[in-house]
Amino acid sequence: MSMIYIRNAAQIATLSGASTKPKTGKEMDELDLIEDGGIVIEDGMFTFVGSNEDAFRYVESHSMSKQVLVLSAEGKTVTPGLIDPHTHVVFAGSREFELNLRLQGAKYMDILNAGGGILYSTERTREATEEQLIAETTKRLDRFLAYGVTTIEAKSGYGLRIEDELKQLRVARQLNAAHPVDLVSTFMGAHAVPAEFKGNTEGFVRTVIEEMIPAVAREELAEFCDVFCEEGAFTVEQSREILVAGKKWGLKPKIHADEIVPYGGAELAAELGAVSADHLLHASEEGIKLMAENGVIAVLLPGTAFFLMVQPAAARAMINAGVPVALSTDRNPGSSPTESLPFIMNLACLTMKMTPAEVLSACTINAAHAINRANVIGSIEVGKQADLVMFDAPNYLYLQYHYAVNLVDTVLKKGEVVIQNGKRVYG
Amino acid sequence: MSMIYIRNAAQIATLSGASTKPKTGKEMDELDLIEDGGIVIEDGMFTFVGSNEDAFRYVESHSMSKQVLVLSAEGKTVTPGLIDPHTHVVFAGSREFELNLRLQGAKYMDILNAGGGILYSTERTREATEEQLIAETTKRLDRFLAYGVTTIEAKSGYGLRIEDELKQLRVARQLNAAHPVDLVSTFMGAHAVPAEFKGNTEGFVRTVIEEMIPAVAREELAEFCDVFCEEGAFTVEQSREILVAGKKWGLKPKIHADEIVPYGGAELAAELGAVSADHLLHASEEGIKLMAENGVIAVLLPGTAFFLMVQPAAARAMINAGVPVALSTDRNPGSSPTESLPFIMNLACLTMKMTPAEVLSACTINAAHAINRANVIGSIEVGKQADLVMFDAPNYLYLQYHYAVNLVDTVLKKGEVVIQNGKRVYG
Ligand SMILES: [Zn+2]
Ligand SMILES: [Zn+2]
Repeated sequence: MSMIYIRNAAQIATLSGASTKPKTGKEMDELDLIEDGGIVIEDGMFTFVGSNEDAFRYVESHSMSKQVLVLSAEGKTVTPGLIDPHTHVVFAGSREFELNLRLQGAKYMDILNAGGGILYSTERTREATEEQLIAETTKRLDRFLAYGVTTIEAKSGYGLRIEDELKQLRVARQLNAAHPVDLVSTFMGAHAVPAEFKGNTEGFVRTVIEEMIPAVAREELAEFCDVFCEEGAFTVEQSREILVAGKKWGLKPKIHADEIVPYGGAELAAELGAVSADHLLHASEEGIKLMAENGVIAVLLPGTAFFLMVQPAAARAMINAGVPVALSTDRNPGSSPTESLPFIMNLACLTMKMTPAEVLSACTINAAHAINRANVIGSIEVGKQADLVMFDAPNYLYLQYHYAVNLVDTVLKKGEVVIQNGKRVYG
Repeated sequence: MSMIYIRNAAQIATLSGASTKPKTGKEMDELDLIEDGGIVIEDGMFTFVGSNEDAFRYVESHSMSKQVLVLSAEGKTVTPGLIDPHTHVVFAGSREFELNLRLQGAKYMDILNAGGGILYSTERTREATEEQLIAETTKRLDRFLAYGVTTIEAKSGYGLRIEDELKQLRVARQLNAAHPVDLVSTFMGAHAVPAEFKGNTEGFVRTVIEEMIPAVAREELAEFCDVFCEEGAFTVEQSREILVAGKKWGLKPKIHADEIVPYGGAELAAELGAVSADHLLHASEEGIKLMAENGVIAVLLPGTAFFLMVQPAAARAMINAGVPVALSTDRNPGSSPTESLPFIMNLACLTMKMTPAEVLSACTINAAHAINRANVIGSIEVGKQADLVMFDAPNYLYLQYHYAVNLVDTVLKKGEVVIQNGKRVYG
């Protein structure tokens, strides 16, 4: 039975008090800060959070016969482990060759129609063995952890046929067990129409509904079902059908909504009571209002907008309308090849005018809600799992100031030190 | 006498052939690539660069009685050590508290007039001892090196009175000797008008010209002289007078030009034959044409535009007009608190539409020209100093693809391994 005492944190952003409902409006700007704080961890859980003085007293009175590991957080800012609620992290290959095309003006759908884009990654992913996928994805998880991300959502959708969709999800499950980063799985067979169904989207939708969803659910490979609801991908009607079918099999709905054109995705998310609607660059005012009324979380992906050289989502309008906002890297090989969630926070400040406090809410407790884990992670509170990050920063504002560099000093996952002095100390 | 053999590089971007004149136009898009390359280093210099096969033969025939350190670059991309030709890296304190103000719409000059901005950093820098400045700046140099930057320019301009301007420059000189990163110094007394000269800019200009420049030159503390030529700072006439005075004392002119409004800074740079004009967000078409004609390098700072939430400079127009372009972080505590020059390259691609090849030219050989060091660094060529970076990337395109994460695997400075597997192995 060991104990960890984190002493003298310059600042702790606890994010406490929002485990039952995501933060909205002004709440997003509140972090429940502690100055000169102390944290105690026992058996992988937070057992004391408060002033350093009180934490020291707690340690003195509770540490009998226990080994105590003392970690100094002097001059450092402590936050909950960061959570990324939207990734496509399991895939093979890379697509750097598309960048010059895009700089010359090629658009997402141009590249897709020319045999690049998602379908290129699908070919590489279908060819890859589970072992290859595990090796490639492990490197990505290592980077996530190095940037302070302790839990991610991971979608399928580069298989696009049953055996390869299952392969992706099995890889995610194996990595969830093997790697310090936790993975929460989403089935997204309806990510694109594969070559063999070209011109027959409806036929592919039937396959997704009748074969893939039941197989995924029977093997308990996913908690969520997602669909790319977009002009040229899946219509609102097809998306509804798929998400309703997923619900019947116990998969909670998520949706890629209104990324390229206004398309009714936000409205559909509200109608179905989706956990989240993601992207939302072109969400309608009505759609945003309906999301707020139905408590649908907006998962915003400013890195994707940045990498695709388009305007990001209207985060301020959404926050003002009462929509709970989360942020994500959208890690994928085409439109957002990064694992730096801290940089996504920089972008959210600078390109969407979210405040430094709002972006931290969006990457911790609200992100936890977006993957249905807010009872376990997303804040530093007694009883929660001890996932935390110590940043080389005197206060939380500084995270959005010293931009685009890695400020992570120490990471704890389930009470284990996995990064120390910026270096990995696991596996 | 030891030898280093870098074997089997997936790709070497040598940047060769432009040591006498910076790259312009189409040349910027050429990197002189070698696939499956090999590099040999002896006595801190490159002595062979070519195919791996030929490099191996060179090693076999030249290594008698020498120890050979073999570094594998399999699957990696090798570039010259990155060069940052515009920083204000020597200062004390930080200014994260301005970010919330700026998100609410405060402008650069608002913050300056409110006693923040440069003058806040001036107070902190004046208060600091040399030892404190060395400690703070060393952390920044460590980060630069971690991101593959092996040489930087460093400006004074947070002292704004003779003793503190000299203090900043002496710190830069000490760090140049003590730290693996090389520092090339620029005197920039005319960075802002200090509080004690408020309303008397002309009086401060006299102090800069009559006292500071001679003192800096006598102590040989700088190679360049720079001035903030901008509405509210120093006029074109004052800037001309300062730079001409600097020239008389052997300091080559550089200029902060046309950052906030079109002001004639680009034109002045051309008139004086400045080595570089920097920022240039609002440079006139005529100014750009004159810069091209006079071979003035445009040092562009897209990170500053990003952090200040304004549009970046018109890089494409400048390249098309034949202006040699370099890139820089502009590392400073107000408008660009980052050391990640690789991220500045990402920004240059995505926000200024420079190609992946152009940005690499801009951060290596053209940056070397911007600090008058192209005879020694900026390319991987026989006879040049062995500064190089090995990136965890299969090709140079990938550097602009896997964005906002640190891909640096290994760094050599003057033939010494200073970063290996992403970890520092110096000091
Ligand atoms: Zn996505
Ligand atoms: Zn500057």
